[in-house]
Amino acid sequence: MRDFLPADKARRERVLAVIRERYRAHGFDEIETPVMEEHGRLHAGIGGDNEKLAYNVLKRGLDADAIRAAADDPAALTDLGLRYDLTVPLARFYATNRGALPTVFRAVQIAPVWRAERPQKGRYRQFVQCDIDIIGDAAPRAEAELIVATLDAVDALGLRGANVRINDRRALDGMLASFGFAEADRPGVLITIDKLDKIGPEGVVAELRERGADPAAVAEFAEFLDRAPAPAAPFGAEAIRTALPPGVPDEVVAHLAGVGAAVAAALGADDASPLVFDPFLVRGMGYYTGTIFELAHPDVSYSLGGGGRYDGMIGRFLGQDVPAVGFSIGFERIVDLVAKDDATAAAAIVLVHDRDVPLDELLALKTRFVAEGARVRLEQRTKNLKALLERAAADGYGAFALVAAGSARESLEVKPLA
Amino acid sequence: MRDFLPADKARRERVLAVIRERYRAHGFDEIETPVMEEHGRLHAGIGGDNEKLAYNVLKRGLDADAIRAAADDPAALTDLGLRYDLTVPLARFYATNRGALPTVFRAVQIAPVWRAERPQKGRYRQFVQCDIDIIGDAAPRAEAELIVATLDAVDALGLRGANVRINDRRALDGMLASFGFAEADRPGVLITIDKLDKIGPEGVVAELRERGADPAAVAEFAEFLDRAPAPAAPFGAEAIRTALPPGVPDEVVAHLAGVGAAVAAALGADDASPLVFDPFLVRGMGYYTGTIFELAHPDVSYSLGGGGRYDGMIGRFLGQDVPAVGFSIGFERIVDLVAKDDATAAAAIVLVHDRDVPLDELLALKTRFVAEGARVRLEQRTKNLKALLERAAADGYGAFALVAAGSARESLEVKPLA
Repeated sequence: MRDFLPADKARRERVLAVIRERYRAHGFDEIETPVMEEHGRLHAGIGGDNEKLAYNVLKRGLDADAIRAAADDPAALTDLGLRYDLTVPLARFYATNRGALPTVFRAVQIAPVWRAERPQKGRYRQFVQCDIDIIGDAAPRAEAELIVATLDAVDALGLRGANVRINDRRALDGMLASFGFAEADRPGVLITIDKLDKIGPEGVVAELRERGADPAAVAEFAEFLDRAPAPAAPFGAEAIRTALPPGVPDEVVAHLAGVGAAVAAALGADDASPLVFDPFLVRGMGYYTGTIFELAHPDVSYSLGGGGRYDGMIGRFLGQDVPAVGFSIGFERIVDLVAKDDATAAAAIVLVHDRDVPLDELLALKTRFVAEGARVRLEQRTKNLKALLERAAADGYGAFALVAAGSARESLEVKPLA
Repeated sequence: MRDFLPADKARRERVLAVIRERYRAHGFDEIETPVMEEHGRLHAGIGGDNEKLAYNVLKRGLDADAIRAAADDPAALTDLGLRYDLTVPLARFYATNRGALPTVFRAVQIAPVWRAERPQKGRYRQFVQCDIDIIGDAAPRAEAELIVATLDAVDALGLRGANVRINDRRALDGMLASFGFAEADRPGVLITIDKLDKIGPEGVVAELRERGADPAAVAEFAEFLDRAPAPAAPFGAEAIRTALPPGVPDEVVAHLAGVGAAVAAALGADDASPLVFDPFLVRGMGYYTGTIFELAHPDVSYSLGGGGRYDGMIGRFLGQDVPAVGFSIGFERIVDLVAKDDATAAAAIVLVHDRDVPLDELLALKTRFVAEGARVRLEQRTKNLKALLERAAADGYGAFALVAAGSARESLEVKPLA
């Protein structure tokens, strides 16, 4: 868990404001849920491995007997927990508030989550997730709106050239079935295929053999991998059909093609469309039921976000199936990529004053600059003026003025900080 | 703990953006600390009664033996807790990061805190606090900057006419001493005086008698109450001296007068200055050591915020005394007072489309409107168009257009939502 100092915090807030504004423009409504959810909801099997990483909150008012009785049932010590993602709370929120929400509900959530991870570089125990979700729309329109909004937000942050790879869990399943992998083996096979970017086609085939997967199926898969076209755009039903082995249902192909056509129409895309079909994209989470996608940028080797359809999950809370699809931006990674420049620095002024300037003069001057639209910090002059100004520049101030007793606003010279 | 639906969440974010922008203009730097702090820090006696309301987080990986052993020492079950205020985390933050902060550090914190309160109207277990603090400045400049910035933020929210009452703990103590209240009795006497607004001068005197306070001291106090001038502004050292019994140190009077003069100079204030001296203002928290103040507005009977000097607290974490003073806005109360109007509604458009409009046409139209600067929601037309439009208006949309298959942007008529 981290403290954020002024320069970092300001940058995070700038990035959040851009994302929030862009998602709002695309018709997504921001909601907020409490950071604590009931323990049972957080441990209903939806959160996958993250459930094990949840921070649990101690029940209030436990006496010695209650604690002793909980020795063999530690869950009795806790009734609430900190959320480990924003998807479980969204499903709970939707079930609670459905009557007050539009039929097709487009949600934005920008909020921290907590996971009790082992400390390691680049992993935090508190970090911000930034999710958009569409609940109540089974059509490819939902995926298209998510993808277009996300690409617009990333663009607005100055990260031009991002792309989105897309696939469908049902296409993956159909593909593995067509090669002859038994249904029970497919989840394990997917875990290996998920490493394609890291270990390459030969590595994947070798690992499948090591795992003891059906040799005939592995051979068929190896051959398919060998002749598979590189992920490409634009794509239509025909291109997808060509890229896949037989056995993938037509409706899956039509859904993917629908998303592709809608995104292309929205962006006026040509050959350089940012949406590409990738028949080997897997995505880790167990709850995906249809399309899956991943956000990438040529400047970095890691994914900047991802998402997919999880049509089964809302039903777990609601007792009635509702289609849902979401896209999550990797906020912490994106913050690190966004330019550090603060466009507002020029209007941020440090008034460096002598010790003997009367307080009421100082405050009157400060208010005057604030009223002119500036951001103003007062600093009493120290021997090392240079160090003082460097510190202010690091904090995002772009100008300064020296104030002596009796200085009038009009006589002050505002100079840029180097 | 509450869910925030779209209209409420949007309003909260609008209010937060205004406060954040105004505080930033006045030279306050926003910081952020993790929501969890070490259990020992949260229970070091600084948080007063709030410490008892803290949510404690269960240690990870406790086995049956460890749980059994904790039966007589429940604190052994927890290592972290959710913060119950932003002041304890600020003191910890300052001690941790002092080397990277300016000599006079002006902090903004806008963040949730948690208290395990009994459920009751208007009290929440998770709520947002909105604090500004100045660390490292013992001069009245600090109070004046806090008060001017807070009044500006409240003004920018449209709550004109707010005022700030100010007093000093040392003035209260000197006053009680001059009447003859023994030092040990004074905290109890202050609790009663704190009820002055509620039960009036006669109620206060009666309660002091009931408590068994020294009758001679109570009589002197009653006489003083009787002839005390109403809180008034503008105030200088002379007015403060007149309003107080003898025995209050000159430095305290000078400090208060310094704040008054600086605020008046900053605001160009006349008789209607929003800063008034109130010798009976108490404020609850135990950690205040000097000036105390409270924000009020003529439209409501309750306080909208408050603060004061707590010169001793940072030293508890740092091992070295550092002056500090803070002002906290009652965010949840202020949100309820701020106008519900959303100035951006006019540019928020619902595209109500027939079922047969092709997806790529729809997405292309949506992107076109978004590029024009609108906020856009797609809605498939239902039989009850009126209900659909009412729902959209409630969600902050101010306009709509009906889209049929083949509609071009240019031919669409955008109409205001009634």
